[in-house]
Order: sequence, then structure tokens, then C-alpha cells
Amino acid sequence: MKLVEKTVMDFVNAVESKEPAPGGGSVAALGGSLGVALTAMVGNLTIGRKKFNELDEEVKDKFEKAFNETIDIKESLLEIIDEDTEAFNQVMAAFKMPKETEEEKSRRKAAINEATSLAMNVPLKAAEECLKILKLQEVFAQYGNRNAITDVGVGALMAYSGLEGALLNVKVNLGGLDDEELVNNIQAKCDSILKEGKELLEATLKVVYSKI
Amino acid sequence: MKLVEKTVMDFVNAVESKEPAPGGGSVAALGGSLGVALTAMVGNLTIGRKKFNELDEEVKDKFEKAFNETIDIKESLLEIIDEDTEAFNQVMAAFKMPKETEEEKSRRKAAINEATSLAMNVPLKAAEECLKILKLQEVFAQYGNRNAITDVGVGALMAYSGLEGALLNVKVNLGGLDDEELVNNIQAKCDSILKEGKELLEATLKVVYSKI
Repeated sequence: MKLVEKTVMDFVNAVESKEPAPGGGSVAALGGSLGVALTAMVGNLTIGRKKFNELDEEVKDKFEKAFNETIDIKESLLEIIDEDTEAFNQVMAAFKMPKETEEEKSRRKAAINEATSLAMNVPLKAAEECLKILKLQEVFAQYGNRNAITDVGVGALMAYSGLEGALLNVKVNLGGLDDEELVNNIQAKCDSILKEGKELLEATLKVVYSKI
Repeated sequence: MKLVEKTVMDFVNAVESKEPAPGGGSVAALGGSLGVALTAMVGNLTIGRKKFNELDEEVKDKFEKAFNETIDIKESLLEIIDEDTEAFNQVMAAFKMPKETEEEKSRRKAAINEATSLAMNVPLKAAEECLKILKLQEVFAQYGNRNAITDVGVGALMAYSGLEGALLNVKVNLGGLDDEELVNNIQAKCDSILKEGKELLEATLKVVYSKI
């Protein structure tokens, strides 16, 4: 059964269990999914209303474009909830491969490398999707339905937690890779995403707090 | 159907829908639930292991006590996921009450006050539960299974987002209350919870980053 098909209660209990997966990677992707869903809800509560229709055409276009982008981000993050746990399980399976003969050792090493690379790329994608939401949220804070202003705020907080949480999972897997140049590149990418994400969260929350 | 009985995918889609509930309050409580569940998982992956058994008795006691506390916090936050949406719906219902006669007006006003008070107290409780988790997490970062260090980090991020997100929902409902002294007291309480929560998150993340 896919994780997203579990009930919310069963998912939370599956996280809590002594099985290491689902763990932080899947939870971060769910955090991002919830952040983007709240943002989309604010869009649904805004577009077509009187106050929205009175905005400049340029602002309306910008808002509607941002709203349309939320759908793809949500779909992508919902998929990552399961992909992250699958990638983690692949790493575990690779480590359990036999390592008696030289051939087995070499096959195991290749499998570990491949699985670790996947276990790094999946949360990296999650972080990038969360960054996309954070880029959209300021416009929702500025022009979204005022009654839903706290939902924009919670959405930004969840998207940011998803972002930093996913990056923790990228970083911990970097240790398992041999290619130093790749490691340095990914590390720099993580730092840049984290910095931009933090700035976007602060900008959105500033607007939110000014309106409550 | 209770929200926690929906599948994860249906819950996310219910958030996204044009219905204003479930919204940020329920999502914040779910964020907190996920944060505490990750923390409990780290406890499950730590207690009884060789490295844990070698720790000082005092540390083991502290860790086990923290672990035992996670269960109650999780149960409480899972309940708040539904309670918050129920409280929100009560506010909406109160505003829709008839207001033709003086008697109706007065009955409506009383219902709005009561519902708003509930809609403020439910997320306040959520924020307090999230603060409890954040208080426990540093010991998990310090003595928990090293392989699950990123799970402690994601857990802290989710708990903090749950805390600040819940406080946004407290604050927005303060505007609907007449009692100035009560408003000031709650405002001060929110500020104190937010400050302490932020410090605890930073302390835990500092330990997490030093270990990955």
C-alpha cells in the first residue's frame, strides 16, 4: 500500500514505529504538500471574488499564474512522499547484499552507490519543489483573501520545514558518495536553496504578520 | 468522517479545496503530530541498543522519560487536527445565525464569542503541545541513534512550524474578543511560546548539523 493511501492516523503511527521508514524524508515531502495545498486553498478562496476582480489585470494574471503552478508542485510532492521511503529502503537493501566474494563486494558497492544517489536526488527534488512554493507565496499573502491570511502563513512555514527537512536528507546522503566534485556542487546547491528559502519565508511572514 | 481517518492524499486534497476548513489550524496540528512521531521513532530506534545501554543511568532515565512523554503529546495533537476544524466550523455557523430581532442579535453575539474563544483555545493548546516536543528534542539529538539524526532535525522543524502556525491561528482569533485584559494576556503568552520555541529549534538544529 502506498503511504499516501494510508489514513492520516496510520501514517503518523507508521512514522512513529520502530521501522526507520517512513522517516524524515517522507515527512518533509508531506510538509511541503500541506504547504502547497494551503496555498492553493487560498487561491480557491480568492479568484473570482469581488475584491479580486477589482485588482489590476497585471496583478490578477500574476496571481492566477501562481495559482496554476500550485497543482503541479502538489502532485510532485505527493509522489515524493512514497519515492523517498522507496529510495531509503533501496539503500537498506543494498547494504544487506552479500559481500563474501570480490564479485559480490563490487556488485554491493555499485548498488549502494546507485541507491545513495537516488536517496539524495529524491529529497533534492523535494527541496526544489518546496522552494517553488515559497517563491509563489508572497503574492498570495499580498493579494489573497484576507480571511485566509493565516493559511498563507502556515503554508509558508510548512513549505519551509519541508525544504530544510529535505535538505537535511540530501546532506546526510552526501557522505556516502565518492565523487568529490559532485559532493561540492550539491553542497553549494543545498546552501543556496536554504538561503533563498529562508529569505522567502521571512518575506511572506512579514506580510502575514502585518495583516493579522 | 474524522479528518485523521481520511487518507493522506484525501486530506491534502481537502485542504486544497475551496472549503476554508480544514485549513491552517488543522495543518499546524498535523505538522506537530508528524514532528512528535519522528521524535518517537528516533526513541524506538535508540532505546535498548548497545550504544544506548552504555550511557550513564542518568542520561538513560532522562531519555526514556522524554520518550514516554511523546505518546501523550502525539495523541493530543492528533485530536486537535479535528478539533480545530470543528471549532472553525462553529465560528462560521455562529456568524450565519439570524440577526433580525434584538434577542436573535444577542444570542448570535454570545454564540460568536463562545465559538471564537474555542477557536483561539484549540490552537493555543496545539502550540503548547508543540512547545513540549521542542523541549524534548535536544536530548534526542544528543543521545538518539546517530543514523536517525536527520529525523530529529525534521521533527524539530515540523514541531516548530506547528507551533508558529498554531499561534497565527490564536492571534487572528484574538481580534474577535472583547475582553482587553484577556487579549493582552494571551498575546503575551503567544510571544513567550514563540520566543522559547524558536530558541529550542535553533538549539536542536545546532546539534543536528554538528552530527551530519
